[in-house]
Amino acid sequence: MSMLGTENVAGTDPLASMRERFTIPEGVTYFDGNSLGLMPRSVGPKVTEVVQKQWAQGLIRSWNDAHWRDLATRTGEKVVRLIGAGPGQVVACDSTSVNLFKVLVSAVRLRPGRTRIVTDIDSFPTDLYIINEVAKTHGLIVDAVPAASIPQALDVDVAAVVLTHVDYRTAHIHDMQAYTRACQAAGALMIWDLSHTAGAVPCELDACEVDFAIGCGYKYLNGGPGAPAYLYVAKRHIEQCEQPLTGWFGHRAPFDFDLEYAPAPGIERFFCGTHPVLGLSVLHNALDAFEGVNLQALRAKSTALTRHFMEAAQHRLAAHGFVIASPMDDAQRGSHVSLRHKAGYEIMQALQKRQIIGDFRLPDFMRFGFAPLYNNVDEVEHLVSALEEIMVNREWLVISGEERKAFT
Amino acid sequence: MSMLGTENVAGTDPLASMRERFTIPEGVTYFDGNSLGLMPRSVGPKVTEVVQKQWAQGLIRSWNDAHWRDLATRTGEKVVRLIGAGPGQVVACDSTSVNLFKVLVSAVRLRPGRTRIVTDIDSFPTDLYIINEVAKTHGLIVDAVPAASIPQALDVDVAAVVLTHVDYRTAHIHDMQAYTRACQAAGALMIWDLSHTAGAVPCELDACEVDFAIGCGYKYLNGGPGAPAYLYVAKRHIEQCEQPLTGWFGHRAPFDFDLEYAPAPGIERFFCGTHPVLGLSVLHNALDAFEGVNLQALRAKSTALTRHFMEAAQHRLAAHGFVIASPMDDAQRGSHVSLRHKAGYEIMQALQKRQIIGDFRLPDFMRFGFAPLYNNVDEVEHLVSALEEIMVNREWLVISGEERKAFT
Repeated sequence: MSMLGTENVAGTDPLASMRERFTIPEGVTYFDGNSLGLMPRSVGPKVTEVVQKQWAQGLIRSWNDAHWRDLATRTGEKVVRLIGAGPGQVVACDSTSVNLFKVLVSAVRLRPGRTRIVTDIDSFPTDLYIINEVAKTHGLIVDAVPAASIPQALDVDVAAVVLTHVDYRTAHIHDMQAYTRACQAAGALMIWDLSHTAGAVPCELDACEVDFAIGCGYKYLNGGPGAPAYLYVAKRHIEQCEQPLTGWFGHRAPFDFDLEYAPAPGIERFFCGTHPVLGLSVLHNALDAFEGVNLQALRAKSTALTRHFMEAAQHRLAAHGFVIASPMDDAQRGSHVSLRHKAGYEIMQALQKRQIIGDFRLPDFMRFGFAPLYNNVDEVEHLVSALEEIMVNREWLVISGEERKAFT
Repeated sequence: MSMLGTENVAGTDPLASMRERFTIPEGVTYFDGNSLGLMPRSVGPKVTEVVQKQWAQGLIRSWNDAHWRDLATRTGEKVVRLIGAGPGQVVACDSTSVNLFKVLVSAVRLRPGRTRIVTDIDSFPTDLYIINEVAKTHGLIVDAVPAASIPQALDVDVAAVVLTHVDYRTAHIHDMQAYTRACQAAGALMIWDLSHTAGAVPCELDACEVDFAIGCGYKYLNGGPGAPAYLYVAKRHIEQCEQPLTGWFGHRAPFDFDLEYAPAPGIERFFCGTHPVLGLSVLHNALDAFEGVNLQALRAKSTALTRHFMEAAQHRLAAHGFVIASPMDDAQRGSHVSLRHKAGYEIMQALQKRQIIGDFRLPDFMRFGFAPLYNNVDEVEHLVSALEEIMVNREWLVISGEERKAFT
């Protein structure tokens, strides 16, 4: 079964050669591209150019000469295809949390008089923290409910719904069109967090008439540790948006040094401070790894990898106490798979000792990201065999005496 | 006069060798370290290490193994000496504008019931924009007055005063102790913007009992284009502060994934999203350029350079219509000097054609930054001679037909 799967996928994988676009550490099998993507090979020379040439030699002149000025806009334009957005609606800037703050406050201001924000209780915590803070400042109430209950929570009091497209633990895909329609039917604005989506799971922001979206630059987009994030605002809203972080780079004419803030007419009004040129340059370059990649093929590869792992887990790992926490239905599953196990932390550490890297999310989620640009079925097989051996040999028991790491 | 000055400064300059810590482009004379500092030589190898080793090879493990986890805290600890702060009060994160938003909202929340924010009408515009936005959201009034009038504007209704230590155009130094005392005498909280201070003009945040400060990482700190900024919060306030950008990195235990936000006990509560590792690594490394540098010597060098330029300007440039816009009194002047001239933009462009780089600020400020770590008196002489020649030969007239650049 699994060998047949291997041949099928490998034999017909149109993305097999994409792996060569990345630096893969010798001996490492990496399933954490959903947390920090591999480094695209092109990044090395680019960083050297930006630092040694644009900065060290060009200095301040590079804002014009090396086009740093519109780098954040150009980076956004490289993201649009991956998330089904037309031009002029996406920029790269700040962090995902800061961007959620900006779009959520904008949304709330577009719906004055409404008193509630609805979200998924299982959202990545930073989203919940920001939502609660925005609600507190604006005198609103937060309804954090299971995602499936969101439609029932909607009424004319709801200003905005914040929902993550691919759940960070289970990889469950929330139906973008259905939730967006339900939200908008109540007159509320829909904000999607695409952090575990973009670069692995195609989506259609424009076709679904989404209002706002945010997402992370360092996961499947491979922008490097703490890369700038991005945000999307539907064209129909941009001119009405008053985002709350009114820094000079969001001004219509930053170098006029007007005393009064006047937002840029376009999506650039969502900028705040000076662009983080180094991080943006890396993200901009890293996005070239998607050049020529057909998004249907990307999704097919991702699905094949996760399905292969889940089938193997069912047949070969269930006996060792692993419980599959991700949807069996391909259509409902993103690009990672979580297994739950009471010794999950220790098992992940045992894997790491074998240079097989995934991550762990409390309370007991062992999370494996399958990045369709570089992971392959041979690696999945290697992972499953290693898990079997670790359980049979009780390797994880050795770990349980060690101190837990701060960053998991 | 000027030759004597040259010898005096050069002969006794204990910082002369610091220039070797930087990459200086062949043929370029750079007076824009107050806008984008030169690249310290150590940055090149460091960036390669961070990208090729920590990211590409270490991958997600580097959060622990390469100490990315506390990089923002460690970077802050390298800034403290430059601004007279004890440990545990400074972190590097986000942009200056975002950091002003965080500390200003924190300050306003510490002074409930007070209705006004007072600031300098000549602040760098991004500060004014953020102040106005915070005021709008919190139902407060902004009094933007000339800095000298701030003491008269203070009363029991004032929640916070925001003031830039070194004016971005004139380089006028506002007396940190005097303004802070006046502000606090009214029961308000004092926030200083140190963007044009740190790295060139020593200051004493702790000794002056300042409440909050923010500053830029890419000017005299040489952190590279769009480097992370920093913020300071006096220890006595930290535990009471509720900053509004409550992202997961400011949480007490980010990897516990609590549903409720609980701020870190220390200055780390001012973090929001995931640390921008690349930018932080560069800033952290760049700050080594200050290692072993005596801050009194730094200030003496800075003052000698600006004085030399101003005296030369008085004697050799006044006849060409230049007006000195910076204080003649050394004690009141930061590390840059502005000349005003009706053809200021064109003259700066003519200088740039000679590879002499300063910058231009509307309406007519020609701004020259003298970075005491790498500029020297020979360069100042070169600048003055070039300005004389440009005026005598009317070189600037050629420029006036060209299109203005977007980034000045």
